Amino acid sequence: MIALVNAMHITASVFINDDESGLHHDYDVWLEKLAPHEPVSQYRHNVGEDNADAHMKRQIMGREVVVAITDGRLDFGTWERIFYGEFDGRRKKRVLVKIIGE
Amino acid sequence: MIALVNAMHITASVFINDDESGLHHDYDVWLEKLAPHEPVSQYRHNVGEDNADAHMKRQIMGREVVVAITDGRLDFGTWERIFYGEFDGRRKKRVLVKIIGE
Amino acid sequence: MIALVNAMHITASVFINDDESGLHHDYDVWLEKLAPHEPVSQYRHNVGEDNADAHMKRQIMGREVVVAITDGRLDFGTWERIFYGEFDGRRKKRVLVKIIGE
Repeated sequence: MIALVNAMHITASVFINDDESGLHHDYDVWLEKLAPHEPVSQYRHNVGEDNADAHMKRQIMGREVVVAITDGRLDFGTWERIFYGEFDGRRKKRVLVKIIGE
Repeated sequence: MIALVNAMHITASVFINDDESGLHHDYDVWLEKLAPHEPVSQYRHNVGEDNADAHMKRQIMGREVVVAITDGRLDFGTWERIFYGEFDGRRKKRVLVKIIGE
Repeated sequence: MIALVNAMHITASVFINDDESGLHHDYDVWLEKLAPHEPVSQYRHNVGEDNADAHMKRQIMGREVVVAITDGRLDFGTWERIFYGEFDGRRKKRVLVKIIGE
């Protein structure tokens, strides 16, 4: 069996990494450097909403993960954990989880 | 059921994001900033063809997407659409689509 | 059938690209530019081990690939090959391979 877990929003990510708050802070700072929110005028997509940078950040972090399930459990390495990364922050958000195979 | 959709070329991407031309322009500009084509001499891979930057751009945007199928339809969030991103531009291109599960 | 191939370590990647040593050198240089190791003090995660940059590099290159299997073989484009990318370098490493479907 495998599990597909994906964001249903194009300014958000589902990714696998370490459950460590310092690292998550580092991701925020790093993503802001690679895809800065300001100046909002640098992006053509910024009409109506100023979230073009969130669409960039999500591409770096990824939309989805696919994880093996073995003996009824997510078959993870020691430090692997699934996270939902939100780069825009508006609206209610949904995650899709689908399990297939035998 | 899930659908796997992937590029079969290593300088191209299949990705999911918004169907909005301003955003696609923003991606072009942004990717060129993160992985510039020029100067071509900065990449060792640029022998024969000068497309090393396309191999970088493709890693940021991703090779493939895996999408849940529910009731016979791609189970998408409101704005999710699948795109083929071409960063080199030579040759005919192919996409692989595979559907598995019940 | 599809094959899932993923790193089980959060500072490593499984990715698909060209089997060309110049390109792999280019990836090293490029990733170091996007997520520099030094100065290690720039990352909060760098307590105990100084590998925060490896967690960034892995997000760009990706954790996993999902590949179609057709007639018993990986259904690859001409130049597609699977690689394990190691960005930290400590400890023994494991890769998970899971094949599902008919």
